[in-house]
Amino acid sequence: MRKQERAARTRQGLIRAAAQAFAQRGYVQARLTDISASAGVSPGALHFHFENKAALAAAVEAEASAALRGVVRDVYHGRQLALQTLTDATHALAELLREDVVARSGFQLGCQRALGTELSLRQEWQGCVQHLLALAASEGTLAEGVAQQDMVTTIVGATIGFEVLGRDNPEWLSRQTITGFWRAMQPRLAAPGVLGRLDPEGRQQTEPSVC
Amino acid sequence: MRKQERAARTRQGLIRAAAQAFAQRGYVQARLTDISASAGVSPGALHFHFENKAALAAAVEAEASAALRGVVRDVYHGRQLALQTLTDATHALAELLREDVVARSGFQLGCQRALGTELSLRQEWQGCVQHLLALAASEGTLAEGVAQQDMVTTIVGATIGFEVLGRDNPEWLSRQTITGFWRAMQPRLAAPGVLGRLDPEGRQQTEPSVC
Repeated sequence: MRKQERAARTRQGLIRAAAQAFAQRGYVQARLTDISASAGVSPGALHFHFENKAALAAAVEAEASAALRGVVRDVYHGRQLALQTLTDATHALAELLREDVVARSGFQLGCQRALGTELSLRQEWQGCVQHLLALAASEGTLAEGVAQQDMVTTIVGATIGFEVLGRDNPEWLSRQTITGFWRAMQPRLAAPGVLGRLDPEGRQQTEPSVC
Repeated sequence: MRKQERAARTRQGLIRAAAQAFAQRGYVQARLTDISASAGVSPGALHFHFENKAALAAAVEAEASAALRGVVRDVYHGRQLALQTLTDATHALAELLREDVVARSGFQLGCQRALGTELSLRQEWQGCVQHLLALAASEGTLAEGVAQQDMVTTIVGATIGFEVLGRDNPEWLSRQTITGFWRAMQPRLAAPGVLGRLDPEGRQQTEPSVC
């Protein structure tokens, strides 16, 4: 393995170990010595890559942010209705939070550290929900009389609630929970005739969706 | 002031000071010396009332739980529709979280400390939502085809989301946010003819409601 490649692997290992420590013990209580030990490197190697705990947390957040953008980008492929994309994005976010400790920790860090000036992951998610609802409105697939801002409030509130409740009980991030949420919301959101074209279970993204 | 009364006041002051410290610094970082100083009593007086930080946290949670039960009980008065009571209960919970640091801290503690065996405040709230939706179903005021469990998921998820998002930005717990949420949800929940009898802004509880 080349030196550069090895350094990149060490850095990735440290980010993952830090995310695990932050998720388990919280940012304040997580200890750098535990993080380096868990990544299988010396404290010196940790400090070569990251100046301090704040730098590690920033790296976890940056990676979580990239992961969030990745799953949202993935559900955009195919030419489907914006409301279906929103449904799929929520499923993808929940799956990411279930499966990926770096994403989970990145979302949690936003509320554990002092607020920075950068966009938090929650705000990024809110921007995504806003964008997709505006897209649905411009498609003409949003039911009449639905106030977009009310729906952004409801969808962002609920998904952030699932994220937080899912820390103690992963059931809140299950496919079943997210499907139930969209069974509740889609009939309120969709214009007449559109509901039958929406699937609250989300479309699998393994093959291109056909609409 | 009688001795007993003075002791009760000191205890209350300590609970409030602890709630403020937990909400500001988190349970782990809150320090007993700061709590006693902020309550204007000696560390010895604190230890007379509370054995340790865990005992203080338990007292904060117990008081928050009593406050939650109080606001829910208050909105039950009057003979109104269960869906209106649920709307009013959500407004009352948001107001409690906005105004009362003990309630706010009590909700936060549930996720900061190791999980105990006692019912958390979030679970109490979930029980309340479940009960009111079942009541609406038995009244016949729930729209056909609405799965109660999906609605419990959505309403609990959203309100817990508002609680968490409201820590950084109180706008998420404002009357405007909660009203927007119910404007989004009531048309989906209410049976035909019932919607016109519901007010998403919540009914003021200063005088008995007339239905």
